[in-house]
Amino acid sequence: MKKAIVLLSGGIDSATTLYWAKTKGYKCFCLTFDYGQRHKREIKSARAIARKVACPLFVFKINLPWKGSTLFRNSGKISFPKSLAEIKKRIPSTYVPSRNTIFLSIALSYAESIRAQAIFIGANAIDFSGYPDCRPNYYTAFKKIARLGTKCGVEGNPISILVPLLKKTKAQIIKLGKKLGVPFELTWSCYAGRNKPCGKCDACSLRKKGFIEAGITDACGCKT
Amino acid sequence: MKKAIVLLSGGIDSATTLYWAKTKGYKCFCLTFDYGQRHKREIKSARAIARKVACPLFVFKINLPWKGSTLFRNSGKISFPKSLAEIKKRIPSTYVPSRNTIFLSIALSYAESIRAQAIFIGANAIDFSGYPDCRPNYYTAFKKIARLGTKCGVEGNPISILVPLLKKTKAQIIKLGKKLGVPFELTWSCYAGRNKPCGKCDACSLRKKGFIEAGITDACGCKT
Repeated sequence: MKKAIVLLSGGIDSATTLYWAKTKGYKCFCLTFDYGQRHKREIKSARAIARKVACPLFVFKINLPWKGSTLFRNSGKISFPKSLAEIKKRIPSTYVPSRNTIFLSIALSYAESIRAQAIFIGANAIDFSGYPDCRPNYYTAFKKIARLGTKCGVEGNPISILVPLLKKTKAQIIKLGKKLGVPFELTWSCYAGRNKPCGKCDACSLRKKGFIEAGITDACGCKT
Repeated sequence: MKKAIVLLSGGIDSATTLYWAKTKGYKCFCLTFDYGQRHKREIKSARAIARKVACPLFVFKINLPWKGSTLFRNSGKISFPKSLAEIKKRIPSTYVPSRNTIFLSIALSYAESIRAQAIFIGANAIDFSGYPDCRPNYYTAFKKIARLGTKCGVEGNPISILVPLLKKTKAQIIKLGKKLGVPFELTWSCYAGRNKPCGKCDACSLRKKGFIEAGITDACGCKT
């Protein structure tokens, strides 16, 4: 059975990606990161989702000791973009330098070590926070890294980097997730780092917009 | 003063790269990794070299818990290629999946957070162990990652990925290092994980060949 690493943060996009990968016949190995994020709560969601589909989950702890993002727990008070329009104007302060490159590089190492054929990542570049490492040309470049920077790649068996949601809107992702049976009630999006979703941060705003546009009620208990 | 991150493993190549970066006028921030390697001894060398040039050194601890390389301390007995010719035939078992991609991605995050303009890495693709992530086209691909996957990159100020030794032979590197005043006696190459160099592993063999071809005596106390 073909194997895949699935980057599972615990949000709607990564959960839908996991369910998608399973429909494609992959034996999935989930990978999540404890990287000092405020919303460490998402790891609990990742665990619950992985358990739901009986896939192993690896929680990779990585300490990024430098500043550079308001998303880090140690970075003091956080202020979120006031509107979705503001997100579109500039990259928000919640951007974590090189985050997806770090996550993908570790996933690549894991994939090669267990001889997985693919890495799935739930990035999308439509209803997103504007992060550079969520855009299509970035993934085109990382596919080259997977081909040129690994033993299996230069031997002719590169690990595929699959980004199935890249060009979907949040509403389309939610509709797809519903069709695939994704347990939205287990997912977590909020960045604020509290026990309940704040309803105001980029992640909450995008989630709210997505559910409204999809015409589906969000069962997460989110204030939105 | 322009800043750079220098990946400093503690070997001849990375030490020469550090000295090179300094001659180019960079304020250097050294970065080394404790990743479960047998030859953790190299970190002591990295410390000594950074101290010698009064540059800060950050030791980044990263636990890669999977198998996949005989270079890991937990991987049991190691056998090295019997000759340099054998290295050229196939990628040795000391290859660590995706190592340089992991190191570079973390360096990229560090660089962006301190607003460094460049990352220096001492990879070379002539007298090397054949690792895929030491080859020129891999670095061309990673330069794209630095440009497309970071905030500073998409804003028009990408971090440069500089690989000054990429096409030099080990002898050329050693001659350059001597000219720049690199303290070879502080460097460490051996993979075997003992207190003294084994003289037999890929790294010791390539070092020995380099010093002989450069016509310089190696003062490291290596059996070779």
